[in-house]
Amino acid sequence: MNTFSHSLEAIGFVVSPYKQKFGIARQPGLVPASKIVLQLLPQYSADCVRGLEGFSHVWLQFVFHGVVDEGWAPLVRPPRLGGKQKMGVFATRSPHRPNHLGLSLLKLEGVESGKNVCLHLSGADLLDGTPVVDIKPYIPFVEAKTDALSHYIDGPPPLLQVSWSPKAQASAKAYGLDADFLLLAEQSIAQDPRPAYQDLPQRVYVMQLADMDIAFQITEGEALIVDIDKSAS
Amino acid sequence: MNTFSHSLEAIGFVVSPYKQKFGIARQPGLVPASKIVLQLLPQYSADCVRGLEGFSHVWLQFVFHGVVDEGWAPLVRPPRLGGKQKMGVFATRSPHRPNHLGLSLLKLEGVESGKNVCLHLSGADLLDGTPVVDIKPYIPFVEAKTDALSHYIDGPPPLLQVSWSPKAQASAKAYGLDADFLLLAEQSIAQDPRPAYQDLPQRVYVMQLADMDIAFQITEGEALIVDIDKSAS
Repeated sequence: MNTFSHSLEAIGFVVSPYKQKFGIARQPGLVPASKIVLQLLPQYSADCVRGLEGFSHVWLQFVFHGVVDEGWAPLVRPPRLGGKQKMGVFATRSPHRPNHLGLSLLKLEGVESGKNVCLHLSGADLLDGTPVVDIKPYIPFVEAKTDALSHYIDGPPPLLQVSWSPKAQASAKAYGLDADFLLLAEQSIAQDPRPAYQDLPQRVYVMQLADMDIAFQITEGEALIVDIDKSAS
Repeated sequence: MNTFSHSLEAIGFVVSPYKQKFGIARQPGLVPASKIVLQLLPQYSADCVRGLEGFSHVWLQFVFHGVVDEGWAPLVRPPRLGGKQKMGVFATRSPHRPNHLGLSLLKLEGVESGKNVCLHLSGADLLDGTPVVDIKPYIPFVEAKTDALSHYIDGPPPLLQVSWSPKAQASAKAYGLDADFLLLAEQSIAQDPRPAYQDLPQRVYVMQLADMDIAFQITEGEALIVDIDKSAS
């Protein structure tokens, strides 16, 4: 046997504040304030998730739908290595990979069984609209390998200090943004979402979160949120 | 958006001593002696796995190809619960699941870059011929959640004591089976491969390993390997 094809159908879709790739944490769990809802399609009834609420963490298997058209390459420059070194795609978690399958371990905050079953999850690194193809319970006795060797991925990336300009504070107030949203903005930017090895202190970056554009600058380990505005789209 | 389809292509296939479902460990890592080779297709060059050898553990994402035709059901009776209680399919790791995707954390023993790249992996719970659709490095700082709650899956299942009948010992010698193979047989049977809640001390079960049939009986926490013979097929 030299070929095998298999067709996946989404079991549900993600509702996420991340409306674009820029600014999404590079691993799950790094931005605890990132909360998403996974809405299952109606054919996946409450029976399908019976007992899932007894697990604190679940795996989502999903498709990196935003980059399927961009294909993949055998070698990748992981942001973790400052974009200076190449690794094989299978030695990275890059979304540009054969089959474009994603795998994220998320915290299960709650299960809601209405007309559609909804899972509330946090620590998410998923784009809005992501098609999910499987949910699995996390099994610590098998999957918590604290002594595993992980080469160049040796711990969480360093965080930036994040502060707010008076203008950004005033905008946040004017738009009535709540503390959860401000925390999400701070945690997302603290991850340093800049492209690997880019260091342009003057440059103003803009990331979209929910329906807001967050403008910020980064200088020497510190980020300044310069303004917040309603997104154009 | 209410539907999303995505087509997967195998990146490689597994060569495993497990030729049939019966007897495969129910989770990876439980049978350390279970060694497999993942042979990548020729289009996945050595570049694709550059750096992977620096990781001790890798994820395989694969298709449960042996049960795709059997479909899935919303409720499952996990062997762990003695087959007495039903759980939602997404609260189990059952192969009979929507999209039939599998996920196993295996120990990476070595990477071989010949004409086809081969990964040597141990602790495997994969059927011979399994089509693999992705390889990802394990990231302990994100994925080793030792304090995760896991409901009814609270640790490794109890192991059976395994012994050999004189007849089985003589057969093993006559066939020239090596210590690795005998260990694989022992570890596989120690898992208690019987269907959940089946307790028939007189019954002789047969599991196929590589090209051998292993016959055994189970009584009160002990397994006896009664004979070993060449498989008919």
